Amino acid sequence: MSNDEIKFVINGYTQGAIPDYQMSAFLMALCFTGIDDCRTSYMTKCMVETGDVPDLSDISGIVADKHSTGGVGDKTTLVVVPIVAACGGKVAKMSGRGLGYTGGTIDKLESIEGFNTSLGFEKFIEQVNVVGAAIVAQMQNLAPADKKIYALRDVTGTVDCLPLIASSIMSKKLASGADAIVLDVKYGSGAFMKTLKQAQQLADLMVSIGENNGKKMKALITDMSVPLGEAIGNSLEVIEAVKTLKGLGPKDLSDLCIEIAASMLELSLDISYAECVKLCENSISSGSAFNKFSDIVKAQGGNISCIDDIGLFKKADYIKKVKSPKSGEISLMNTEKVGEISCRLGAGCLELDDKIDHSAGIIIKKKTGDLVKPDDTLAILHTNNKEVLKDAEAEYLDSISIQ
Amino acid sequence: MSNDEIKFVINGYTQGAIPDYQMSAFLMALCFTGIDDCRTSYMTKCMVETGDVPDLSDISGIVADKHSTGGVGDKTTLVVVPIVAACGGKVAKMSGRGLGYTGGTIDKLESIEGFNTSLGFEKFIEQVNVVGAAIVAQMQNLAPADKKIYALRDVTGTVDCLPLIASSIMSKKLASGADAIVLDVKYGSGAFMKTLKQAQQLADLMVSIGENNGKKMKALITDMSVPLGEAIGNSLEVIEAVKTLKGLGPKDLSDLCIEIAASMLELSLDISYAECVKLCENSISSGSAFNKFSDIVKAQGGNISCIDDIGLFKKADYIKKVKSPKSGEISLMNTEKVGEISCRLGAGCLELDDKIDHSAGIIIKKKTGDLVKPDDTLAILHTNNKEVLKDAEAEYLDSISIQ
Repeated sequence: MSNDEIKFVINGYTQGAIPDYQMSAFLMALCFTGIDDCRTSYMTKCMVETGDVPDLSDISGIVADKHSTGGVGDKTTLVVVPIVAACGGKVAKMSGRGLGYTGGTIDKLESIEGFNTSLGFEKFIEQVNVVGAAIVAQMQNLAPADKKIYALRDVTGTVDCLPLIASSIMSKKLASGADAIVLDVKYGSGAFMKTLKQAQQLADLMVSIGENNGKKMKALITDMSVPLGEAIGNSLEVIEAVKTLKGLGPKDLSDLCIEIAASMLELSLDISYAECVKLCENSISSGSAFNKFSDIVKAQGGNISCIDDIGLFKKADYIKKVKSPKSGEISLMNTEKVGEISCRLGAGCLELDDKIDHSAGIIIKKKTGDLVKPDDTLAILHTNNKEVLKDAEAEYLDSISIQ
Repeated sequence: MSNDEIKFVINGYTQGAIPDYQMSAFLMALCFTGIDDCRTSYMTKCMVETGDVPDLSDISGIVADKHSTGGVGDKTTLVVVPIVAACGGKVAKMSGRGLGYTGGTIDKLESIEGFNTSLGFEKFIEQVNVVGAAIVAQMQNLAPADKKIYALRDVTGTVDCLPLIASSIMSKKLASGADAIVLDVKYGSGAFMKTLKQAQQLADLMVSIGENNGKKMKALITDMSVPLGEAIGNSLEVIEAVKTLKGLGPKDLSDLCIEIAASMLELSLDISYAECVKLCENSISSGSAFNKFSDIVKAQGGNISCIDDIGLFKKADYIKKVKSPKSGEISLMNTEKVGEISCRLGAGCLELDDKIDHSAGIIIKKKTGDLVKPDDTLAILHTNNKEVLKDAEAEYLDSISIQ
């Protein structure tokens, strides 16, 4: 295909001149023939241009962004954004809501009373310039081509195609207007990519798309075969993020957040990765990262008292420990299943009209590799819906193997 | 795919439960993955079962049918059906109208004044039993799955796929209810299959589909790189068919008709192919084949006087000779192009609302391999539309190479 032909297809479909039945045949053909990196990059550019791209030129300095391909318990944005801002980077973050069994940053932030995730554009830019960072919900008209194509792929067996996955993710990232993008590509049972090799291919392609469209790019590839940190659920994850910003978070989460934040700074400031890591670690030990998070919450109208005293977050009515039935080592966790259980407890939407319960979720006490004895607490379930509690407990035990 | 899954797709799409955009994705996937002969046979059976299949059991003996994959100037049905009936075979023929640049048997027969191509079903059966043959237009509800799938393939780039081509043709053939089917698969510039190899693959697959569905099958593969016989156009082809039935037709046409008719008799009667060829040749020399054609025309209400005296067919108002501009050998004819010129003279429908002019068409005087001198007549154009004559002459000269 020539560039003109690619543009014809993307614009034609978005505007309705190309019907669904032709686009689905095209997408299926593309699943079989593949499409090279150059054309995928151009296709992504065309997808971006079907919508609005915010003009971030009023922000002084390089604007950095991050993207995670999603995973159960991934609250890195909440930790990374204040660290980067505390170290002198600029982050104009647009985030999404939960999708299926993975939570969304916007849902998590809305568990902070009063937090406003839909600032006007001018206020958004102003806050990034003054505070160094702002986190808002994605604009409606961000890469509409992607929205329409994704909906069609979802019902025509054309989801599982690397160039289509990469162009979908990158169209939204490019459309958010940042100069530098760090990707965190997950693999394992809790992620969309099941193997390391798939994750590497996806990362390579997305970096290529970004660079071909003039962005500074870096990708990390991280294991999602166990949930990240201990907390799953909205306010539970905010609490864990606050602990992590104070240097008291789980090691896996803290390490990943430092790596992502240092990578964003490496692309933004003209200093080495090692220096960036040191900056990030200092921002935590000095308290400046935590203070930056407070500043962001305050600037966006959130109730700061919960952040200062995490004990003030509303607790769920029903809190139940899942106990180990036997001795052994946890040999496997089905992270996807754990994410689903958390949704059923109220933390996410499995159906379109489900309502999110901000205090629901799971605290995981034992993960893959841990040794357990009978009656050890494996996890703690939080919910306001008593009815789902018993099934959730049984399902949680089903989702892990103790050998 | 299991048989149940194949049935689910075909029935679901025909009944509207599966939307166009899912079916087109499925068809495109099938173009790439292919599908084995067994599954193609079952898919064809499912397509047949979405519609009506006439019950021909009231016809005594084996009912034979023929199918040509279409070609410019192919009037074999008009010749073959009376020969088979004259030799004791039974033919309950359902034919189609013209498609694109190839003519249709029903259009040709309707150039005979009064000829009724839509007999009621009982009359159709009765005529086959009494006369030995009848030729009618295809019923409306013949394999509706094929009609719907073909329309979708036409607009989604999924026409050029062997199993889909074979199942489409064979669904209509199986649905016409005959016991024995002779296929005449064309290749070359005037046919859908451009190479001998493609034609062989298509023939093999169609024979396999027929046999897997309990039919006696035979396939011929014939060259369509030059038009068959000399006449193209409706009454012009009927006139040529009458001449051929009288033993006065062009050799290529006469030979092919004998081969097809003998193959149909071989499958119908329990005698050797060589004996069948003799029977067919005798039916022409004895006049019984021509008489059988008259019987069919009479039984279906056609004006028999034109058949007895072909000079009575209405002639076109404008008849123009195309002369050779130079000496040489005709090295190539673009048969597809010649078919298009014939349509433009009025013989066929290139657009949906074109009306057929039964007397329009082309008589070809020189074919590939013939030596020509300046002013030799290459072809004679017949039309009632004076305006198209000049362009048609130039285009005809363009469509052949003299070297």
